Order: sequence, then structure tokens, then C-alpha cells
Amino acid sequence: MTEKQTSYILSINCGSSSLKFSLYQSGSLLQECSGNVDTIGSTGSSLTIYKDGKSVLQQSSGFKNLDGAVKAVINWLKTSEYKNSLLAIGHRLVQGGPDHREPELITDELINNLQAFVYLAPNHLPDEVRTIKTFGRAFPGLQQVACFDTAFHRNMPDEAKYYPLPAKYREQGLLHYGFHGLSYEYIMHQIDRKHIKVSKIIIAHLGNGASMAAVKNGICIETTMGLSPIGGLVMGTRSGDLDPGVILFLLKQGKLTTAQLDKLLSKESGLKAIAGKSDVQELLQLEAEDPKARVAITVFCYQARKFIGSLTAAMGGMDMLVFTGGIGENSEIIRERICGELGFLGVNLDKKSNHDNKENISSATSRVKVLAMKTNEEVMIAQHTQTIIKHQTHEN
Amino acid sequence: MTEKQTSYILSINCGSSSLKFSLYQSGSLLQECSGNVDTIGSTGSSLTIYKDGKSVLQQSSGFKNLDGAVKAVINWLKTSEYKNSLLAIGHRLVQGGPDHREPELITDELINNLQAFVYLAPNHLPDEVRTIKTFGRAFPGLQQVACFDTAFHRNMPDEAKYYPLPAKYREQGLLHYGFHGLSYEYIMHQIDRKHIKVSKIIIAHLGNGASMAAVKNGICIETTMGLSPIGGLVMGTRSGDLDPGVILFLLKQGKLTTAQLDKLLSKESGLKAIAGKSDVQELLQLEAEDPKARVAITVFCYQARKFIGSLTAAMGGMDMLVFTGGIGENSEIIRERICGELGFLGVNLDKKSNHDNKENISSATSRVKVLAMKTNEEVMIAQHTQTIIKHQTHEN
Repeated sequence: MTEKQTSYILSINCGSSSLKFSLYQSGSLLQECSGNVDTIGSTGSSLTIYKDGKSVLQQSSGFKNLDGAVKAVINWLKTSEYKNSLLAIGHRLVQGGPDHREPELITDELINNLQAFVYLAPNHLPDEVRTIKTFGRAFPGLQQVACFDTAFHRNMPDEAKYYPLPAKYREQGLLHYGFHGLSYEYIMHQIDRKHIKVSKIIIAHLGNGASMAAVKNGICIETTMGLSPIGGLVMGTRSGDLDPGVILFLLKQGKLTTAQLDKLLSKESGLKAIAGKSDVQELLQLEAEDPKARVAITVFCYQARKFIGSLTAAMGGMDMLVFTGGIGENSEIIRERICGELGFLGVNLDKKSNHDNKENISSATSRVKVLAMKTNEEVMIAQHTQTIIKHQTHEN
Repeated sequence: MTEKQTSYILSINCGSSSLKFSLYQSGSLLQECSGNVDTIGSTGSSLTIYKDGKSVLQQSSGFKNLDGAVKAVINWLKTSEYKNSLLAIGHRLVQGGPDHREPELITDELINNLQAFVYLAPNHLPDEVRTIKTFGRAFPGLQQVACFDTAFHRNMPDEAKYYPLPAKYREQGLLHYGFHGLSYEYIMHQIDRKHIKVSKIIIAHLGNGASMAAVKNGICIETTMGLSPIGGLVMGTRSGDLDPGVILFLLKQGKLTTAQLDKLLSKESGLKAIAGKSDVQELLQLEAEDPKARVAITVFCYQARKFIGSLTAAMGGMDMLVFTGGIGENSEIIRERICGELGFLGVNLDKKSNHDNKENISSATSRVKVLAMKTNEEVMIAQHTQTIIKHQTHEN
């Protein structure tokens, strides 16, 4: 009797300037190894593979674009010990339009349908679809699964979902979708596993991209991002929500074209526009000396606080506040400044637990439980992929 | 000895489709008479003059535009008993740019300066400046005073005032200004007169145009409208704040020109886009039968609630909530639905007081005092006008 060979699920999570991936053992979903290509487009861009938390391979190639990075990952896989044991590939997709709001098997039909909705996410979806196709050609016959970042928010009520704009645009897909859904889903799984029973939760996913979700009785009822990842909270290089008069001003007074406007609001606004830098950790190190860095941090925390107030009102209260994402997980200072003025909601941090990056960072008397948790979008992708292909195998 | 003749201050408050005015006795600021031209642009548009609460004159002329309405008011004045007793004219101006944030005497220099900032309020400021000029020609030598709707918000802190966009636009006047300032100022005067001492007040000015202000220790620290009156809360025909991605969608997918976009967001969005009608009272009458009307009302109250949460977080709490403006003063149902889910902030309405349109509508045990108050922008204009011309006379 031959030992049953382990098979693996590959999770792909591609952003505009990075590609993260992870291999998980099928069944247990234990992580086998992971990797990333960072700062794609810069000369320093490199592929790194990690196993058991240690870097086991590094290729510096100055990847010019995502396609180059994808090819490098495929080359590595094809020469690795895993080349014949891949079971399936799962992809994070920013958007699937109004009709694709749950994980599903990737077919030609789905790809065609996604291409029809590229206009909903013109800065992300074309890259993601191309990545799926490249993996499809490299591993013909391997099942691929699409996990939409909008799925978590699919049950928002009408008053949160619809824009107050003519219905004809809604019919073209103009909806409040929300993003970071895989991250929110992972956090909710962790909360469930801990048997924490609270009904009104705000999850603040704070990273270079940042959003928050209001989860009432297990259902996301509101989130700060809308149709696109530019909206909601101010971010590293994105403006967040704006008075539409501001955009009319930029069009009329700034004489910007649509393409220039898109670039300005996505890549040249936010903290970068205020302080010349978009990275919150860097800004925190600069703020003692640099008044602009201090203003940028103040604006970030102020807006986060206001959105927490807004989401709390949407739910009629808050029992738990969870910080996650690069900034949310790691920055005690940001968490402290956001929570500092939220005493009126019953938020009270424990200074030491917050400083020590503990999971529970609220004081014993805090009416609202405050947590800082690490998120893991890749394992959610693997989990959905496994479920979908099992279901598929069962159906056929 | 001849009796000293009474002189009058004229307040002018012109909107996009209405012109309101009032005559006040100088000194006492007792109202002598008032008038308005409504639905300018429609065939039913008419000029009505009121004295002691009764209509004393009505001219139906189907005023085609504001200029026609202004001329009719001037004609009436010139043939009235007040023709030789006008002391000064005060005007409400939507916007004066970054450098004009307090009431001031209108000079040629100010008018030139305002014309340089027309791009900040292209839909309102040109009409307002033309109205000032027409009154100037009709009553040469009479002092006129400009009262800016942005004045109340002039001391907002940087984090509320600046947009996270490149500094070069700020230098062109791109700031979070806020509007409805004369209404907020009037309400604050009333609160002061009643010797109510609370430190954190939210004033919700809810009318066809709607905004809210957060007043902490007497200073406005945040407001929902921004650069333009399109932003903040959803309104009768205006969208309120949006994810900028929505506007990129309208430009790319809807292929709208800037002028079409402006018209869409100012006149064809909001409750009108949801339900085909923009008037909240009308929608309330329809909602039992018409699901779209119900959605529109739900969206309006939901957004109001979320902004109250947001402004409360901006102040770190709320002691008093004041409803004003056409809807805020008169609609018990809207007030009830907005406050219904705000128990977590300590808001608790008294059903009967709210039903009876009392001033204090909160219950005896409500931690937050909730008031419904009538606003009066015209008397604020008269008061500022009197102060400025007295100061002026004293200086000369």
C-alpha cells in the first residue's frame, strides 16, 4: 500500500503592487509555505518564499509588473517539490459585480461575466482575471476558485446598499459593495471559535487600504467602503469619501481628465497628500519633528473615530471593537488615539495590554470589549476553495 | 419737535428657486413685514407679502428667474410706505471664499473678490452677487452687508477643515467650509438666551437642504457639508457625500460631462432619485402605499442617525441634540425615527412632547436633551447688518 500523497491548495492574493500566495495542505489546511513579491514595478522588487516562518528562497528580479511576478511564482512552483501535488488554486477577487457575491468555481462563463464588470473595478479586476488565465494555462485541468472581497457584505439592507442616484445606474451595477470581506470573515470565524457571544461588532481593518464593517447578529449591515476601494476612511494614498462638490471642483478648476482624477484620488491623495508619505509607521516616527506627519496621523485617527461613531449608530450600539490589518494589528499608538475619545461609547483600553499587543486590549471595566487580532485572508481563500471543490466533486 | 422716523433693515435670503425677505425696525429688530417669491421658474411663481402673520399682498407673475423676482421686490418696496426709510440691506451669501468668513460691509472690492471665488459656488454665488448689484442700483447710497453662510464654521480644527488632497488645491480655496451658518448661529443664540449650559451640542438643520453641526464649548468643530452644499447627508435632490469611485463610474460608464454630473448630483439625486419626489412631507404621506417612498424616508433617517453618531464621536460625546429647519421643526415622525435607535447615546424622546411639537421633546430621564426649534436666518442677517453699519458709522 502506497502512502497517500499530500495535496495542496494554493491561495493567490494579488494587489496593485504586491502578490501574496500560500500553499496549504488539503484537508487540514495547515500552511506548508508562503511567499510574496513586493513593490512590483520597482527595481528592488523580489520574490521571497517562506517556510516555517523563515525565508528559504529569494529572487531579486525587479519585477516590472504583476504578469512578471505571476510568471516567477509559476516557474518556482513548476520546479518545486509541489509541482505534481496541487489540488486547486483559490484567488481573491476584488469584485464580481452584483451577481457574484459568493465563492465559486472559475469557468469560462464566469471569466466572461467578470470581464463584463471590469468597469466596476478597472484598476484591479483586469489584473486579477489575467492572473487566473495565466495560472489556467500553466496548470491546465486544475480547478480554480474565485473568492470575492465583496461577499461578506452581500446581505446589507437596502438603506446601506443603494446610492441615492437614479435607478438606471443601479441596474448597471452601481451598488455599495464593500471590500476586505475575506479579512472580516476570518475575524468573525476567530470570534466564533472563541465562543464570544456579542451581537454588535465593529471590525476595523486598518492597513494601507482601510475600511470598517458593522456586524450585527452575525450579518454585515454596513461598511465604510462603497462601490470602490477609494471610499470610506482616508487611507495611505486614497481620499476616502468626499463631498461630490470637491470632485466637481477638481474637474472644473483643476481641469483634470477622468484618468487624472482617478490617479489623483487613488494614488496621490490621503495621508500622502497631507504629509508626502503614506505609511503610517513611518509617519509615526516622523511626527515629533514634522508637523505635516502629525496632521496626517491626527486626520487618520479622527476619521476612524468618526466612522466608528457612524457604524455604532447604524447598529444602535457596539459591544465589541476589533482592530486588524497591518496598522490595526501592530500599532498601539493608533489604537490608543482612536479609542481615546470613545469613552462615551463605553470603550476603555488597558494601557499595558495595548502596549504589549495582547489580543484583549480593553480594561476589565470597559463596557465594549476591544481586541487586536491578526487577520489571514489567504487561509480563508484556501478554506473556500476546499469547500467549493469538495462540493463540485460531490456534484459530479 | 418732529417724531423720529422709524428706519428699517431689509434682510435678503435668496435660494435657487426662492427669494425670502424681511423688514425689521432698526434698533429693536422687531419684524415689520416679510415676503417671499416661491417656485421661481414655474408659471405658478408669485410674490406674497405678510404683515402680522397675514398675507397682505399677492402678485402672481410666473417669475422666470431670480432677477425677475428681485425686480418685483424692488418695485414693491419703491411704491410702499417704507421707500424712504430703508437704513441698510443685509444679504445671505452662500460663500465668500477662504478670506471672507465674517459679516462685512459690501464694497466694490468685496464684490470683485467674490467674483474671483465664483468657482467655489458656481450654482449660487453669481445670482447672489447680481442681486446685490441690482439692489445697489435701485437704492444708491444705501449700505449693504454680506453675511456668509460659512462664517459659523470658520474655527473648525485642521482635521475637520482640510481635505486629504494635494496642498495646491487648498491654496485655490479647496476647504471644508460648511453651510447653514446663519441658522446654526440663530439656534446657538436661542440656547444662550435660555441660559442652557451644555458643552456638546449637535444641531440638525433638516430641510430640502440638510446639514448638521457639532458645537463644542460654543465653537463649531465639525459639520456635515463640506466645500459645497451637495455634501454630507442625503437631501431632497442632492446626493450627499459619496465614494469618489461612484463619480468615476458616472464619468466613465455614464459618460457624463462635468455639467451633466453637476446637475445630476445637485438636482436629480437624493430622495428624488430614490422615490421620484424630493419633499419629505409628501413622501411621508405616500409611504404606506409606495415602497419607494418608504425606502427614501428610511435612507434619510438612517443617514441622519449615522451622521449624529459621527459628529458625537468628533466631540467625544453629546449633551444636546437640536432639530431645526423645515423638516426638523415640523416632522415628529422624522425626529422619532432618527432618535429611535439613538438610545445608546442617551437619547430618549417624550412621545407626547414630540407629537405636540414642543420645544423640549426629550423625556425627563433622557441623558441627552433633545429640542425642536424654529430657526430664523433673516433676523440673524438683520442683526449682523445692524452691527456692521453701527460699527461703520462709528468708524467714519
